[in-house]
Amino acid sequence: MPSFKGYFETKNLDPFTLEKAYEALKFERSTIGYYDLPDSSIDLCADVKSSLLSSTVFFNTIAVVGIGGSSLGIKAIDRMLRSSTPHAKKIIYFENSDPISIAYECSRIEFAKTLFVVISKSGGTVETLSIFKYLISRFEMDLKDSNQVVVISDEASVLSQFADNYGLKRFIIPSNVGGRFSVLSAVGVVPLVLAGFNVEDVLEGAKQFADNFWNRKEEHLLQKAAFYVSNAKTSPVNVLFSYSDTFEEFGKWVVQLWGESLGKRNARGERVGLTPISLIGSVDQHSFLQLIIEGPLNKTVTFMHIEHSRDELMIPNLSLPFLEKSDFVNGESFNTLINAQCQATMESVLQSGVSVDDITWSCIDESSVGQMIMYYELLTSAAGALLEINTYDQPGVEHGKKILEGFFSHKQ
Amino acid sequence: MPSFKGYFETKNLDPFTLEKAYEALKFERSTIGYYDLPDSSIDLCADVKSSLLSSTVFFNTIAVVGIGGSSLGIKAIDRMLRSSTPHAKKIIYFENSDPISIAYECSRIEFAKTLFVVISKSGGTVETLSIFKYLISRFEMDLKDSNQVVVISDEASVLSQFADNYGLKRFIIPSNVGGRFSVLSAVGVVPLVLAGFNVEDVLEGAKQFADNFWNRKEEHLLQKAAFYVSNAKTSPVNVLFSYSDTFEEFGKWVVQLWGESLGKRNARGERVGLTPISLIGSVDQHSFLQLIIEGPLNKTVTFMHIEHSRDELMIPNLSLPFLEKSDFVNGESFNTLINAQCQATMESVLQSGVSVDDITWSCIDESSVGQMIMYYELLTSAAGALLEINTYDQPGVEHGKKILEGFFSHKQ
Repeated sequence: MPSFKGYFETKNLDPFTLEKAYEALKFERSTIGYYDLPDSSIDLCADVKSSLLSSTVFFNTIAVVGIGGSSLGIKAIDRMLRSSTPHAKKIIYFENSDPISIAYECSRIEFAKTLFVVISKSGGTVETLSIFKYLISRFEMDLKDSNQVVVISDEASVLSQFADNYGLKRFIIPSNVGGRFSVLSAVGVVPLVLAGFNVEDVLEGAKQFADNFWNRKEEHLLQKAAFYVSNAKTSPVNVLFSYSDTFEEFGKWVVQLWGESLGKRNARGERVGLTPISLIGSVDQHSFLQLIIEGPLNKTVTFMHIEHSRDELMIPNLSLPFLEKSDFVNGESFNTLINAQCQATMESVLQSGVSVDDITWSCIDESSVGQMIMYYELLTSAAGALLEINTYDQPGVEHGKKILEGFFSHKQ
Repeated sequence: MPSFKGYFETKNLDPFTLEKAYEALKFERSTIGYYDLPDSSIDLCADVKSSLLSSTVFFNTIAVVGIGGSSLGIKAIDRMLRSSTPHAKKIIYFENSDPISIAYECSRIEFAKTLFVVISKSGGTVETLSIFKYLISRFEMDLKDSNQVVVISDEASVLSQFADNYGLKRFIIPSNVGGRFSVLSAVGVVPLVLAGFNVEDVLEGAKQFADNFWNRKEEHLLQKAAFYVSNAKTSPVNVLFSYSDTFEEFGKWVVQLWGESLGKRNARGERVGLTPISLIGSVDQHSFLQLIIEGPLNKTVTFMHIEHSRDELMIPNLSLPFLEKSDFVNGESFNTLINAQCQATMESVLQSGVSVDDITWSCIDESSVGQMIMYYELLTSAAGALLEINTYDQPGVEHGKKILEGFFSHKQ
């Protein structure tokens, strides 16, 4: 299981601040739905298996039609667990209204073998519905009682009504679970179970972390949230520096969770928020690291790495003429190298005066994935409580949607 | 060709500042090599074609072994021009010391049909050399006079000496061209020409933009650099919001260029720099936009979009029961939708008080790609000149490399 180590100063944090955050989250539990998903979704896994697994067994591809909270979490889990779940069905994603991407993904589809999972919390997402219409038209889909389309949406949404109208199988996103907190709801559970991932263990890991948190065994989380919020003015940028390519989509999921939840006007109308950046090591040592080390001291950095890799690839004991200077890693595994790079970079970042913490995964397995999802969700909620904002809405993006509709209003 | 429109206030900028930046760049031309690459690399294209094209024609895959400045630019051009160059050979990338990625890329290789291009400016990059050794060992490569390995490095590097020792074909990165400014040198030219991309037109576009800049026809670039630098304290974060998935790698290339060039200690030892963030629209409207609109006003945003797409995918005139609210885009192209989303988001970001500029590509073609590469390189140089730093070094990352070697010193 992941372990957490903070190198920033916490002794100046007001203990009352930590209590305040904890109590706020405890209070939220009666209204905010994501806290209880690890429990309630266990039944959902069973339901998906009993109701859908046999009728979808001949599909070899799952096409997720969704964007933002309706795709990022699925992609994150898919990517992290893919190499240890080689038998899992291929999942492809229709997200962006980019015609080049839509055309490309369509070219990868064998229609008869593809199950379409259409996901939108509100039921009105313009990208998702437009792409869905395109797919219906392109593949001449007959929707009536089709077992090739599954819908995931809010119970009361127009998309749910649409699904019922056609007799499509559908699942509910609880109305008190926001899109970016929904990965452990039907949003993630349905496509990932159907693809063949072991979602139960992901949920179990999430539940375990949440239980520990409620039992005050993960106080580092509250300390980190309090540290970030109390330093928001001087360190407005929070970097997650993950040492494995398989964390790329997880990083994007964290960016959405952190950015969209915390970038808000507070009760006094003041603009608050923290800017997330996701980096991948060692690649971004060759890109962004210089700015962290010598640029303005306006960032915190969380290093994340995997102690044990499943792939024990070795750097051979091969000394090449003129290249002997690189022989110092000969005979080591690539996993040892990348972890040493993480450690060396962390030390040099620390020495440059940046606030650092370190998350060590012992390995990438389902339980760790679930724990880390719950960790970041709780961290976000705690930071939001301390910023005194509504962590769960996104009022700032509505205006642009109105402007967009205005552009096309001549048609109505 | 791309057009540029700034919505930020430039009338308070000191005209002397713009002159200072222009003169600094003009002065640099005698020592900094990237300015003249569009000219000198035209001959290189011809050289690559005459010396290598016939002996490599039966390879169907090019494996680039390189990281940072030795891969990001190639990936950016590859991605942007791929859909309009469908006959181009597949390029795969060995970058990270991540064992899962290395194993995965190896599984995609048909060895006999793969040309390996090993790229390192210094010749000592630990990831690149370790992966190269792994590939030699795994595929039992016979290096002597091999036509399956091409090396690109500094003339004086150990990697160049290694190549000569084995009689390998090699190309030079001019010593006065830094890695992150090297995409138009042999670094980008060799693999992209061999893959079948029209690199000449990329170079021609870059040359055209540079000529215009030197002839004072692109003053907006100096204005933007001056605006960013003079607002670095209040807006330390510069966002590039690109409305097409095909800009994803270009965004990463910009992040390296901007972050690593400008994050420095200046002559007075002060930490300066600007933090780059790359976003993709419309996807990140569902992720990061809320923070821009309602979070702290510490960001600038550059919107980038493509006026004409090659894929004229249409949203069908299909009205689905209960989903009629989304019919307002029926009969429009996805390209119209994504551009309207860009425009609507830009308006709402502008209205929220954020400094915005807009880059419109009429289409994605070779010339535009070259122009935009040169635009961002010149913009970076101008900002660096105004920050009074050395734009072209990266002293901050050396310490971590020393620590890394220390970890393995028991072996030496």
